[in-house]
Amino acid sequence: MSRFFSEKYRLLVPYVPGEQPQDRNYVKLNTNESPFPPSPFAQNFARRAAGDLQLYSDPDCKALKSLASEKFGFPEDQIIFTNSSDELLNFAFMAFCDGKTPAAFPDVTYGFYPVFSKLCGVDYTEIPLKNDFTINVNDYVGIKKTIFIANPNAPTGLSLPLSEIEKIVSSNRDNVVVIDEAYVDYGTESAIKLVNKYDNLLVCRTFSKSRSLAGARLGFGFACKELISDLETIRYSTNPYNVNRMTMAAGIGALYDEEYFENNCKEIIKTREYTKKELERLGFFVTDSAANFLFASHDKIGGKELYLKLKEKGILIRHFDLPRIENFNRITVGAKEDMAFLIKTLEEIL
Amino acid sequence: MSRFFSEKYRLLVPYVPGEQPQDRNYVKLNTNESPFPPSPFAQNFARRAAGDLQLYSDPDCKALKSLASEKFGFPEDQIIFTNSSDELLNFAFMAFCDGKTPAAFPDVTYGFYPVFSKLCGVDYTEIPLKNDFTINVNDYVGIKKTIFIANPNAPTGLSLPLSEIEKIVSSNRDNVVVIDEAYVDYGTESAIKLVNKYDNLLVCRTFSKSRSLAGARLGFGFACKELISDLETIRYSTNPYNVNRMTMAAGIGALYDEEYFENNCKEIIKTREYTKKELERLGFFVTDSAANFLFASHDKIGGKELYLKLKEKGILIRHFDLPRIENFNRITVGAKEDMAFLIKTLEEIL
Repeated sequence: MSRFFSEKYRLLVPYVPGEQPQDRNYVKLNTNESPFPPSPFAQNFARRAAGDLQLYSDPDCKALKSLASEKFGFPEDQIIFTNSSDELLNFAFMAFCDGKTPAAFPDVTYGFYPVFSKLCGVDYTEIPLKNDFTINVNDYVGIKKTIFIANPNAPTGLSLPLSEIEKIVSSNRDNVVVIDEAYVDYGTESAIKLVNKYDNLLVCRTFSKSRSLAGARLGFGFACKELISDLETIRYSTNPYNVNRMTMAAGIGALYDEEYFENNCKEIIKTREYTKKELERLGFFVTDSAANFLFASHDKIGGKELYLKLKEKGILIRHFDLPRIENFNRITVGAKEDMAFLIKTLEEIL
Repeated sequence: MSRFFSEKYRLLVPYVPGEQPQDRNYVKLNTNESPFPPSPFAQNFARRAAGDLQLYSDPDCKALKSLASEKFGFPEDQIIFTNSSDELLNFAFMAFCDGKTPAAFPDVTYGFYPVFSKLCGVDYTEIPLKNDFTINVNDYVGIKKTIFIANPNAPTGLSLPLSEIEKIVSSNRDNVVVIDEAYVDYGTESAIKLVNKYDNLLVCRTFSKSRSLAGARLGFGFACKELISDLETIRYSTNPYNVNRMTMAAGIGALYDEEYFENNCKEIIKTREYTKKELERLGFFVTDSAANFLFASHDKIGGKELYLKLKEKGILIRHFDLPRIENFNRITVGAKEDMAFLIKTLEEIL
C-alpha cells in the first residue's frame, strides 16, 4: 500500500478469483467455466471483428441490443450490456445503495457482494441462510434495503421458485431488488417475467457460463427503462466503450445460435445429475443444485483436506475457507469424462 | 431517472463520446482513431484466442505483463493493465482522491476528468490554461492536490517537455501526479523515465491510438510498486477479469510488432505536418500539436458552423461547445487521402 492510498479503501479486501495455477495441467473444476467452446458463430463473428479494432466499439451496443431485444422480448431501453455481470453488479451497488439505503444479501452467497459494498462505502446486512442453506424469504419482506439475491445461489446451487422471488420484489416496492441470474439457464425460472410488473426489479445475466464466453467478458441486465437509464448514467460516466468490438460480435453470435446454447445447457444438467448420484453413492451430502456446479461435503473427510488431495491428483475444485461452509467444496460440472475421472479419483481418496 | 437513483449521482452528467452516426458513411476524423488496422500479429493472436473463450482470462495478465516488462524495462509489479485507460484513470481518481485530497487539472483538457471527479464525489479545481492554451507549470507547484495532466493535452495537442513535467512531480511529493500519455507516441518524451525517481508519479497509456486497438479496449500504466498495488486493490475489488482473452492476445501481438507501430507513428506525424501546413495555407490558426489530431480555428468561420458544414459534406470532426474553445475544432489525423479530401472540402467551404 502506498502512503497516497485513500483512507476509504485502506481496509478493502479484494475479491479472490479461483486459482489459475500454471505449474501443471489440471482438470479445472473450480471456476464454473463451461466445458464447451463458444458457438462457432460466436467464434467466427469475434474473429471477423479483429480486423477493425482501430475503431472504437459502439458505446450504445446497438446491434447486440437489437438482437437481445428480439430474443428476450424487451425494448432496447430496458436492456444494458456490460464488461461482465460483475461490472453490472458494481454499477447496481453504486446506483442504488448509499448512506441512506444499505445493501442486504444472504450470509452465504457470491463473495463479490460484500466487496462491492465496501468499495461503494455502503453498509450491508448478511442475512443468514437456514440450516439447510435455503433462503428464508420472510427475512426479506419489507426490509428497506437494496437486496441482492443470486438465483440459483452460489456456492450452494439452490434456487428459489419465481413465486418466492416475487414475494421479495413485491414486498419491497420502495427498494431495488437485484436478482443475479448467472446460473439461471440450468433449470431455474427467470425473474425477467416480472420485469414489466415491478419497477424495482433488476435482473442480471452473464454470457460467461451457459454461453461459454467467460473469457470474453459480457454481462447484461433487464429492468424498467428508468432503472436501466440510471445504470447507463453510471456506465457513461465510467467507461462508455466498456464492451469491446470482439466481445460484442461474440455476444451476437452466441445469442444467434440458440440451438447450441440449449443443447449445452441440457448436457450440463444431465452430467450434473449423473455426478450428483455418483457423489451420493460415495457418501457425499450434495445440495440440490440448479446450477453448473455441485456443492458437496463428506463426513469422513474435511473440505480443505479433500480439496488439497484432489489438487495433488491434478483436479482443481473450489474450497471456501468460510464459516458454515468450510466442510464443503464447490465442484464445477465439466465434461462427462472429467466428471468420471473425478469420481474415480474420489473413490481412490476415500 | 428512477426514484431509486442514489442522490449522490442525481446531478452526474455523463461523458459524451464522439458521435458515431449510422445514417451514412463519413470520413471519420472525430474520435482520434488510427487509420491503420491493428498489426497482423495483433489480429492473428486475437483470432486465435476466440476459440478458448469458455475459459476466464488471466486476472494477473501474466503473459502481457511479462512482454511489457521486457519492452518498457519495468518489473511486472510496476505495471497494470486495464479495460482501456479510462478505466485506469477512474481507478486513479478512486484510489488517490477523496474528501481530504481533491483533484486538479487544466480547465481545457480531457472531458472525462471532471466526470470521474463527480463520480467519485471529490472536489476538483480546473486550473486555467494560458491564453495560448499552454500549461503554466508554476500553477501546479506544491498545490496539495492529486494532479491530472494529459501530455500531450487534449484537445489542444500541446505537450510539455519532460523537465516541466518533472517540476510538477517533484514539487508535489506528497500528492500523486497522473500523467495521461494517451497521445505520447506521436513525438512527446514520456514521463516513464521519471517513474523510478518519484514514488508519486503514475503514467497512464493506451493501446487505442498508436497501436490501433481502440475497439479492443486496453490501457496500461507504470508507477512505483506501491501505487500499482493500490490500483490493483481497486481492480480486484471491481472486476478482476477486466481484460478479456482476445484483447490480451491482441495487446501481446501489438507490443510484439514494434516495427509496425513505429512506422505508423512516423506516418501519422508526417500526415499531421502536411495537414497543418495546408490548414495554415487556408488561413487556419493551428496549435502546435504533438498528437494524432490538430486543433484549429478560422477567423472567417465559427467552430460549430464549420463542423456542421463538414458533416453535411460527409466529414466528421469534433466540436466542443465549451468556453474558450467554441471557435475551435479537433481534427483527427487520418489517412493521407482523407486529409487531402478534408483540405479540398475546406477550400470549397471557405
